[in-house]
Amino acid sequence: MLEPAGALPQAAARLDTRRELWPDEVRIRVERLNLDAASFRQLAEKHDGDGDAVRAEVLEIVAARGKMQNPVTGSGGMLIGTVEEVGPESPLGLVPGDRVATLVSLTLTPLVLEDGLAGWDGRSEQVPADGYAVLFGRSIAARLPEDLPADLGLAVMDVCGAPALTRRVVAEYDAPVVAVVGGAGKSGSLSLAAARRAGARRVVGVVPNSAEADLLRDAALADDVVLADARDPLALRDAVVSTGDLADVTVVCVDVPGCEQGAVLATAPGGTVIFFSMATSFSAAALGAEGIAADVTMLIGNGYVPGHAEYAVGLVRTDAGVRGLFERRLG
Amino acid sequence: MLEPAGALPQAAARLDTRRELWPDEVRIRVERLNLDAASFRQLAEKHDGDGDAVRAEVLEIVAARGKMQNPVTGSGGMLIGTVEEVGPESPLGLVPGDRVATLVSLTLTPLVLEDGLAGWDGRSEQVPADGYAVLFGRSIAARLPEDLPADLGLAVMDVCGAPALTRRVVAEYDAPVVAVVGGAGKSGSLSLAAARRAGARRVVGVVPNSAEADLLRDAALADDVVLADARDPLALRDAVVSTGDLADVTVVCVDVPGCEQGAVLATAPGGTVIFFSMATSFSAAALGAEGIAADVTMLIGNGYVPGHAEYAVGLVRTDAGVRGLFERRLG
Repeated sequence: MLEPAGALPQAAARLDTRRELWPDEVRIRVERLNLDAASFRQLAEKHDGDGDAVRAEVLEIVAARGKMQNPVTGSGGMLIGTVEEVGPESPLGLVPGDRVATLVSLTLTPLVLEDGLAGWDGRSEQVPADGYAVLFGRSIAARLPEDLPADLGLAVMDVCGAPALTRRVVAEYDAPVVAVVGGAGKSGSLSLAAARRAGARRVVGVVPNSAEADLLRDAALADDVVLADARDPLALRDAVVSTGDLADVTVVCVDVPGCEQGAVLATAPGGTVIFFSMATSFSAAALGAEGIAADVTMLIGNGYVPGHAEYAVGLVRTDAGVRGLFERRLG
Repeated sequence: MLEPAGALPQAAARLDTRRELWPDEVRIRVERLNLDAASFRQLAEKHDGDGDAVRAEVLEIVAARGKMQNPVTGSGGMLIGTVEEVGPESPLGLVPGDRVATLVSLTLTPLVLEDGLAGWDGRSEQVPADGYAVLFGRSIAARLPEDLPADLGLAVMDVCGAPALTRRVVAEYDAPVVAVVGGAGKSGSLSLAAARRAGARRVVGVVPNSAEADLLRDAALADDVVLADARDPLALRDAVVSTGDLADVTVVCVDVPGCEQGAVLATAPGGTVIFFSMATSFSAAALGAEGIAADVTMLIGNGYVPGHAEYAVGLVRTDAGVRGLFERRLG
């Protein structure tokens, strides 16, 4: 990486994008990018939905930084492609020709786009692309499941940290009540399925409108589906309480700012809030909990948990409700 | 509270500061504010250390918002004072005349300053003040320990969440190695003492310069004292590793931005990072850990843990090293 010297890739302003590999690196021929939801939303809103302008800005960012990292949200996304060359000391176990998804953020993946994103209309997070990317020794890449369409496999892997961490946290409690804010979304639906399998007594899906409520009810992933604006603390708490109890575990999967206080209020003393949204404010969470003397554990959702890709793919394979929600969102 | 309607106090732009109490409220005659370290640092740097300008801005913020919340850092601080009036339904157990410290953030405490902060030179976090503040039913206030000077008691209570949460996390591991970044500071020294008592096998204090290293060695709070710039990820990791191992629990107590990646790198797989610094970036932590496939639990340091004030005061009473560091910082 180039700037500043000594910085790690995610913090670096610009990455080195030479084609030539170090001995522990792997070069991927890129087929498709999947932009982080918060990043795509920011770009689309900034440009009022003008797809050409969004495309131009993504090209500009990648050219300037050597990676796709939205300067406002700080987030990236992931990519799929085919292994082109493997350095002799790469520990990733890949061979040329493998079709893979990268499970490290695009914010630290050197990337060169060679087609001007000509095949993308700038109106969706899924970006057909031609170019190359470089994986480091400590990167994580997973072979794409051959039984799933590529866009589905990519969408699942993009959010596969959420169900894995939800499973781990839910299993630490004895039959907890689990509320998932944004339960009809991708990470939300996987988290609901994970919570139920990990031993939740009851799972509650919180959604912002009746269309999402209908979708989630049809998917049969939650025992209760409730409506609330997650940015309204008392409304979020009251929606969860209306199902019978505060939540023991609250999982925040909506990419809008201002959900911290409501998530804390909706959680019982001794409970845990897992924040997966990149729109989360650290200080709003810390000060919000302290301010109302809430004894809740607050986790920064780490997108990496060992075995996360296999676990999420397994949920999609075996849970028709999850698969249906994903397929619907992929259009 | 006033703006926006329905917001909770911390998120509100402006609080209602009427003197008259609701039945569950308590009014405090303010004696001293203790500004959050990140907030004071930001103000002092903005005004190049000009105390008069810092004082003027604090007065302006409190007049405009009805509370002391730094608009840049989002943080507040706490206060001490004497109970003036107690509403008939207050659950806090206070009576008029009690000398108390508020353990909720100033960011959600209605506050009116009546003396123009005439007794403060604008050059220290400790702000002598006259005025009044209002506590809600869910606020937390602790009677000041009578055997400690007021400024010492206040300084301890300001950071009392850190040792309590450190104790809880350390106790979940079997004889862990604990590294405290910023070990010579107030929350850092308390966290070191808490980690040792909670069963740490070895405690490591990380400090930025040799003056702090000497202070921490004299206080005898850490088995190892190492120097590193916490903003340099590899330097922080290497400093911790130089003591023998990665840390099982890493506690971040330095109020400077950019320590997230180093804290993750310094922590062993399966370990936990507790972020107490209000300068922590949520996305830098989340993406940084995911990017290097680090299986670490990352906690948002919640300043409230039941019993935290009593526990921290007990550490100061019984650990001469902690007390010495506090007294030195109070000058």
